[in-house]
Order: sequence, then C-alpha cells, then structure tokens
Amino acid sequence: MRATMIHAARDIRLEEAPAPSVLTPTDAVVRVVRSCICGSDLWPYRGENPTDEPHPIGHEYVGVVEEVGEEVKNVAPGQFVIGGFTYSDNTCEICQAGVHSACLHGGFYGAKDRAGLPVGGCQAEYLRVPLADGTLVATPEMPSDDLLPSLLTLSDVMATGWHAAVSADVREGHTAVVVGDGAVGLCGVLAARELGAERIIAMSRHASRQAIAREFGATDVVEERGEEGAERVRELTGGLGAHSVLECVGTGGSMEQAFAAARPGGRVGFVGVPHGVELPVERMFRKNISLAGGMAPVRRYLPHLVSSVLAGQIAPGAVFDLTLPLDDVAEGYRAMDERRAIKVMLTP
Amino acid sequence: MRATMIHAARDIRLEEAPAPSVLTPTDAVVRVVRSCICGSDLWPYRGENPTDEPHPIGHEYVGVVEEVGEEVKNVAPGQFVIGGFTYSDNTCEICQAGVHSACLHGGFYGAKDRAGLPVGGCQAEYLRVPLADGTLVATPEMPSDDLLPSLLTLSDVMATGWHAAVSADVREGHTAVVVGDGAVGLCGVLAARELGAERIIAMSRHASRQAIAREFGATDVVEERGEEGAERVRELTGGLGAHSVLECVGTGGSMEQAFAAARPGGRVGFVGVPHGVELPVERMFRKNISLAGGMAPVRRYLPHLVSSVLAGQIAPGAVFDLTLPLDDVAEGYRAMDERRAIKVMLTP
Repeated sequence: MRATMIHAARDIRLEEAPAPSVLTPTDAVVRVVRSCICGSDLWPYRGENPTDEPHPIGHEYVGVVEEVGEEVKNVAPGQFVIGGFTYSDNTCEICQAGVHSACLHGGFYGAKDRAGLPVGGCQAEYLRVPLADGTLVATPEMPSDDLLPSLLTLSDVMATGWHAAVSADVREGHTAVVVGDGAVGLCGVLAARELGAERIIAMSRHASRQAIAREFGATDVVEERGEEGAERVRELTGGLGAHSVLECVGTGGSMEQAFAAARPGGRVGFVGVPHGVELPVERMFRKNISLAGGMAPVRRYLPHLVSSVLAGQIAPGAVFDLTLPLDDVAEGYRAMDERRAIKVMLTP
Repeated sequence: MRATMIHAARDIRLEEAPAPSVLTPTDAVVRVVRSCICGSDLWPYRGENPTDEPHPIGHEYVGVVEEVGEEVKNVAPGQFVIGGFTYSDNTCEICQAGVHSACLHGGFYGAKDRAGLPVGGCQAEYLRVPLADGTLVATPEMPSDDLLPSLLTLSDVMATGWHAAVSADVREGHTAVVVGDGAVGLCGVLAARELGAERIIAMSRHASRQAIAREFGATDVVEERGEEGAERVRELTGGLGAHSVLECVGTGGSMEQAFAAARPGGRVGFVGVPHGVELPVERMFRKNISLAGGMAPVRRYLPHLVSSVLAGQIAPGAVFDLTLPLDDVAEGYRAMDERRAIKVMLTP
C-alpha cells in the first residue's frame, strides 16, 4: 500500500509499505477513506520538532473496517468508523474520567505500541488500529460523501476545538474569545456556539478565515494582536475581558494574548501543543484566571459530535479548503506550511 | 493608638499612630480584637519582597465595629465582625462572580485606597475598613473567647485553604494531596475533609504539624519531598496520582511537587503567592492537568465558614500555636520566621 513518511524537515514522501494486518485480538484494520494534514504535523515538517529517523505520519482518519481481531465486539468489517488521533481502551480509570488522551494503555499513530508492534500513520491507504473497541466509533450507516469532511474533522480538529471550549468552561450566555484562526480555532468558535456562548470574539486577520469564523458563530472579529488585541476585547466586554478564552495555537505570544483577554475569575482552555510557552503565573494568581485543557480526549466527545454531524447540527468540514489525492500529500504539506490552505483533506 | 509598621527587612516596629476615623460614607472603623501574622508577611520580613518605605502591615483581623459611615447598612457599632484580607464591594460583576479578591473597587490593607485615603494595617488597635458593607460579616452575637482563634483564621488562612480545595475541585470520594504544612496547608486539609475527600494526603515532615493535619482529617502523611514524594503519592493512589492537589506554599519546588502528584485529568489548586514559580506547561498539556486558584476571595466563603465555626463543625483555630500581646509583635515575626511557631495570634 501507499503510506506517507516524514524523513526530515520538509521531506515528506509517499512510499510503498506493507499493508497492516491484525496483530493482536483487540486490533482492527481500517481502509482509510479520508485523511488530512494537521497543523501539528507542521511542527516536524518545519523542523521545530526533530525527526531523528524516517517514520510514518498522519493521525486523522475516517474509514471502513476491513478486519477485526477476535476480541473486538463494538465494530465489524464493513462499518464506517471515526477514530481520534490517539487510541485508547475507553475502560481504564483515566478514560472513565474522560481523559482518553492519557489512557493507561493507549498510544499514538506512527509509532510502536506498548508491545513494540508497529502502528502506522493515517496518511496512508490502510491503518492498524489497536484497542479498536475503545477507539473507534461507527456510524449507523454508510455516510454520504458530502458528510465525510465534517466527520473527518471529528478525528482531531473539531474534537480539539470542542475540548478547548469545554476546558475554557464556556457557558450559556457568557463571552468567549478564540485565539487562533486555524482549523482548531475555527472549530473552537463552533464549539463555543454549540455550548451556548452569547458572544464569541474570533481573533483573526485573514478575511477567508474570518468568514468561516462568522459562519461558525463568531459575533465579533478582532484583528489586532497582543496587548492591542486584548484591549479591543476589553472594550467589547465592558472593560472586564472574557469569561472564557480558547487558546488554539500554542505559542508564547498566543498564550499571552489569551491570558490578557481573560477577565478576573476567567478561564483559559488550551489545546495548542505548547512551543516556547511561559505561563503568567503572577497574573493567574492575582486575577484568579485558571488554565485547563491539553491534548484533546477525542474519544470522549466522539459519540456526541458524530450525532451532531449526522443530524446536520454542525458542519465543521468547512475548514477544509483544499482537497488533494494522497499521491500529492507533499504538496498538501507545502500548501499548509505556506498558509495557502487552512487544512488539506486527502482522498485515497 | 499602637500600630505595627515594617521599616525594612527584619525591622518590625510597634509605633504610635493616629487612630483611624470614618473618611467616606461607606467606611467602618473596627476595634481589632484579635489579629495575627501571616506566612505572606514573611516575604517582606525576609526581604524577598522589597520594602521601599515604612508602611503599616497586617491583613487579618476580627473585631468590634466602633463607628460606621452614613451609607453603611449591614453592620452597626457594637457588632462583632470578620473581614477578609482584602476589602471589596460585594456587588460588582467580578464580586458577583465570586472573585472578591479582584473586586473592581476593592483594595488592600496597609496601603492607600483608590481615592488616595489611608487604610492601615491590621496588626494595630483600630482599623479603617473601606466598603464595610461588602467586606465585613457580623456574627449574630458576641462570640465567646474560645471561638476567637477559629474566627480569626477565616480572615485569611482558613478561607485560603478553602479556596485551594475549591480551586482543586475536591469532590466527594476523591483523593486530595496537600502540599505545604503551614497554616494554609493545614486549613486546606480541613477544607478537603469538609468538601468530602475520601483520602487526604498531607505532605509534611514536622511531627507537630502532622498531628494537626491528622486532627483536621488527613488520612495519610507523606514525609518525602520532590519526585520521591510524588512517587509515594502515586503508590498510595494505585499508581495514578491524586485527583486534586492543593498547592499551599508558592515556591517553584512546591508547585513542581504539586503537579507531579496529580493524576492525568487532575487539578492543582494554588493559593501560595508565587515566588520563582515556572509552570510545567508541557506536563499540563500531555496529562490534561489544570491549574486554578490564586488570591482567595475570602468574602465569598465567609458566610459559610462563619456558620461552620459557630456551629462547631470546624475549629481551624488550632493552627495558632503561639499567642502574644501586640506589644511583642516583632517577636511574633521572629518566631514565625524561625519556624518556632506555625502561626502567631496577637491580642490587643
């Protein structure tokens, strides 16, 4: 089969690789129907995270189950499934507490599992999914093609935006600020709307992204950044700042902006992988601004989000503004790196 | 009257000062019946916070109202009152959200108010209390002397320990770890018990403090510190760490220990004034450990805590292990600095 490998910074190659098979009784093999490229794939692509040796890449997928191990009960061959960017057992104490991304037995795609067995990347034709029962959520029937983009976002960006909103404690009638207008930030806007925020301030200076933010529920757009941006937010919120701030980037600057936009007693929900972030602990102390979030426990939110997409309640697929065949995966990375695309979907 | 002034590091003097009077229609003047010395008073005492010029010090008090301004409605001369270590209006949007310590019109003792009028320190015979209606809570009747220590703790340390437990999201049946065995940490143990924690692990290596921790509800004591201490906590919690960690110190080491003791998805509640703290943002991200807390909104908790003390439900006054007359206030600072006393109460 064809599978995407990263060899080094800016060196993405589609290569021939052995097709995966069921290696343990709890595995499933999934034929990938749609995959995509994540903002976090750009960290190694740009060399900000080192790539010590070539390895498979990609962690977002929807597909059809090809084969399952003998202990798999919840999904069966032929079913359409969505999985998050980590696999998890959904039964350990940590999963039961809703933190599937720190599952005691889980792991990541594109690396070995805890038994040392290979788990491929998702920018590929087929994928071995460990702990299939605790990882995959099947749709009741085969979804139509037009739903695929939205279902695919649930694998990461929509669930991550949702986690930002949940972590930021977005509540009915409150004000939420979203820092970051990438796919996760835009999904964060949608999540804040779904969770009942009355006012949603998207911080963005790109017209095309602002348009999606407004489509997703943003009531205001602030183009200014840094302290100036925070000042604009305070002006829009009676001088106080926002109850909830969704930090969807992960840089020092975005985190600083997030805290500057929060009111006393407010909460920042962060989901951007932190790079060079120093948290303003004195400000947090003085103003009782809390910080929650982290790597999104996608599996926790999947049942609700899948239902929402199938019911037409949310259509986060709008974040995909470029679709390429898997053969052109390297061009997809370039397009995202150069910000020519918000998010790239890959067809087989 | 006599009032305590700090002139410089280790230079505490009881001096003659003009007695305060009602300066605005929302003021009260309180005769201080008991005051005390706070762990946070030791920061300037030790020179870790600079003292640029001599100023009054002390922020914890209970007393009797002497006089009120004409707009004061909730307290009257002759009533016994407790106030928190900040004053607040209890009506602004931030107070209504429960963050009285960041009140839009509030302030601190020992400094000027927003109108530039003097507000004295509480280690004194009399005190001007601005925003009396939003700051003071009166008891239904004059409390007996034996209740005074416990009522006095509500002015800061007990309310602060309570805030640590609330911020750490202590819940019925969960496990809480308390980092810090000073007065706030010990009160945090008591708060965790009151909020229903099933297991309360106090981190302490001082026998006398361990004894109070156990009296307050600690089920386990861990003497080890740092990574070794965190390892002990994990052993006691099935390898996972605690749901809630109360960080009641404010140093880099104590914060690190707090995060190391928290399970994935857990929460650290911090109330120690941060000094040299760097937050472990990558760990927070990877494990979804959240951080909440800050300067305690004492006024928010006062009605409940006053009732609890008067009903005999809690007796946090046990944290006072040395009582001195106000005349010996400098000796009180020395005793706390040298850790000869957990907390020093001052009588007029």
